[in-house]
Amino acid sequence: MNDFLNSTSVVPEFVGTREIGDTIGMCIPSVDPTLLDQLHITKKYSVLGILSARSGAGPQIMAMDEAVKATNTEVVDIELPRDTKGGAGHGSLILVGGYDPSDVRSAINVALDNLSRTFGDVYNSAAGHLELQFTARASGACHMAFGAPEGKAYGLICGAPSGIGVVMADTAIKTAGVNVLSFASPSHGTSFSNEGMVHISGDSGAVRQAVIAGREVGLKLLAQLGETPVNDFPSYIK
Amino acid sequence: MNDFLNSTSVVPEFVGTREIGDTIGMCIPSVDPTLLDQLHITKKYSVLGILSARSGAGPQIMAMDEAVKATNTEVVDIELPRDTKGGAGHGSLILVGGYDPSDVRSAINVALDNLSRTFGDVYNSAAGHLELQFTARASGACHMAFGAPEGKAYGLICGAPSGIGVVMADTAIKTAGVNVLSFASPSHGTSFSNEGMVHISGDSGAVRQAVIAGREVGLKLLAQLGETPVNDFPSYIK
Amino acid sequence: MNDFLNSTSVVPEFVGTREIGDTIGMCIPSVDPTLLDQLHITKKYSVLGILSARSGAGPQIMAMDEAVKATNTEVVDIELPRDTKGGAGHGSLILVGGYDPSDVRSAINVALDNLSRTFGDVYNSAAGHLELQFTARASGACHMAFGAPEGKAYGLICGAPSGIGVVMADTAIKTAGVNVLSFASPSHGTSFSNEGMVHISGDSGAVRQAVIAGREVGLKLLAQLGETPVNDFPSYIK
Repeated sequence: MNDFLNSTSVVPEFVGTREIGDTIGMCIPSVDPTLLDQLHITKKYSVLGILSARSGAGPQIMAMDEAVKATNTEVVDIELPRDTKGGAGHGSLILVGGYDPSDVRSAINVALDNLSRTFGDVYNSAAGHLELQFTARASGACHMAFGAPEGKAYGLICGAPSGIGVVMADTAIKTAGVNVLSFASPSHGTSFSNEGMVHISGDSGAVRQAVIAGREVGLKLLAQLGETPVNDFPSYIK
Repeated sequence: MNDFLNSTSVVPEFVGTREIGDTIGMCIPSVDPTLLDQLHITKKYSVLGILSARSGAGPQIMAMDEAVKATNTEVVDIELPRDTKGGAGHGSLILVGGYDPSDVRSAINVALDNLSRTFGDVYNSAAGHLELQFTARASGACHMAFGAPEGKAYGLICGAPSGIGVVMADTAIKTAGVNVLSFASPSHGTSFSNEGMVHISGDSGAVRQAVIAGREVGLKLLAQLGETPVNDFPSYIK
Repeated sequence: MNDFLNSTSVVPEFVGTREIGDTIGMCIPSVDPTLLDQLHITKKYSVLGILSARSGAGPQIMAMDEAVKATNTEVVDIELPRDTKGGAGHGSLILVGGYDPSDVRSAINVALDNLSRTFGDVYNSAAGHLELQFTARASGACHMAFGAPEGKAYGLICGAPSGIGVVMADTAIKTAGVNVLSFASPSHGTSFSNEGMVHISGDSGAVRQAVIAGREVGLKLLAQLGETPVNDFPSYIK
């Protein structure tokens, strides 16, 4: 999977795309005030950055988490469409606000650049998928989307079909002493996706160990549905 | 895309189909009273017309808007499944009521015939879609589905993945002085579809101009995700 | 369609899979207490059985209904993701609780074995699907998922796209004297699936007759969208 070559920005709002997840990044330097009133955002910035994808929510949220750490911007909206183009999960719509268009464009570029890392532990098969995420220090995107305490280690352990995520969560939590923030399932904390997903927080080493244990059991279970799950980019959680 | 040839109505309720959107039209001349009590309709007509599709909500709603203008029928329910067969949008279930089965059948036929027009500004690519709609005079279907004031010009500007719809909305509103009725996104005003969508009303010329401007920027942005978006029927908004 | 051969249980929680619906069955003999607190279950059993599928909710629920009748277990959660891999319906996540892991494993195996029966009246075409279910004596799964009175005959009559389900429901109810429990549609009683679905109860013969009448009209209507709908397993409702 390679990035697209977008040598010419055909409209001023365009920032960039990535093939993975059909992800597009944009920036509106001065949002129309009547539109701003209609958007569902936590704070009304007139400079808005937009990261939008058909497939993937966790990877884009984790990528944006790095982006807001690295720039003078703030996450103001995260919405999870039930998408993935026939798959079991979510797409994503993430809005960030800032005071300067160059800051916001920079945040969107940082997020786009992080996707090849944050998709590293997304494993797909014909029957479903697994997603693992880890950060040693959660920031605004993880806080808004998953209730992660900022500044602490955060981990996401997800399996689809959703029952696999229940077993992954159980295994992960038993492996290391972590705080269970919440468990999301088709009717709770998702947009009716077919995912079981536990959000954990705590000591960095324990969170990482729990995520790795969840991944191990998830890969074995999903493989029982006929195909070995594969990731499109190298795993980053080691 | 051609219509199916349905020379024989195999059941009395059948009215017709269109290949576009897998759309089927039906009419129940006398609904069972116990079923009528369980349907979620605004007014209990015992003669019900049904327009139902796997793909497309806006096109079917706009087509039904013309149908209720042209016949003695009333829209009593509009529901938006999260469908489109793996795409980013909605299917539709629209119920109309009337006093005479011939009126209701006529309404369903008018709606089916309008689909080749109202799908004219739906543009698809592998990565997403755009939808534009315009009417100089909104009627009951646009009012129920989108909050459009009846008798006034109404426009719909929609992009998927949803972030593209945010930029389309901003461009459209800046182009001409229109009333912004609402902005719909994955978590607000949709059934978790991956669409960003602005509903506008106002002077006919201004609404049309705004819709055209939204379309122009949407086509350029969606094309950045790899494929030129194409429509299955000729554009009707000029 | 054949079952997979899972000669080796790679993890202790694994029970079995079926190719139909990408269905997987698992059992956790002693759920972590902190996870148990986060699950959305009606009663906190520490022995949990899990039946999870990408495609199909009715078939898995009916299969589990037999399983809880046959074993000392109880249904504690039923969730319906909007899935079916691009189709118009649901997947499923069903949790059962028990006091003994061997009871729970047995329940999951009974449910898996019933799927080739309960998928017998699921008919698919490129444009949509139909689902019919019937039991002479509803138990806990039908009660939790559909509000069926336990111990009485229960029937499910479902069509997609959803408008077909409206006509199927009307025909079914007019055929025989049954109690209409509810009518589910994209915005009511589903997870935004494109299904129209009536739940009925009453005298066993009447319920069966109504289900068969709904099936007959549904097959004719769905065929009008271009393809004859087919079932993957033999019909069981006769």
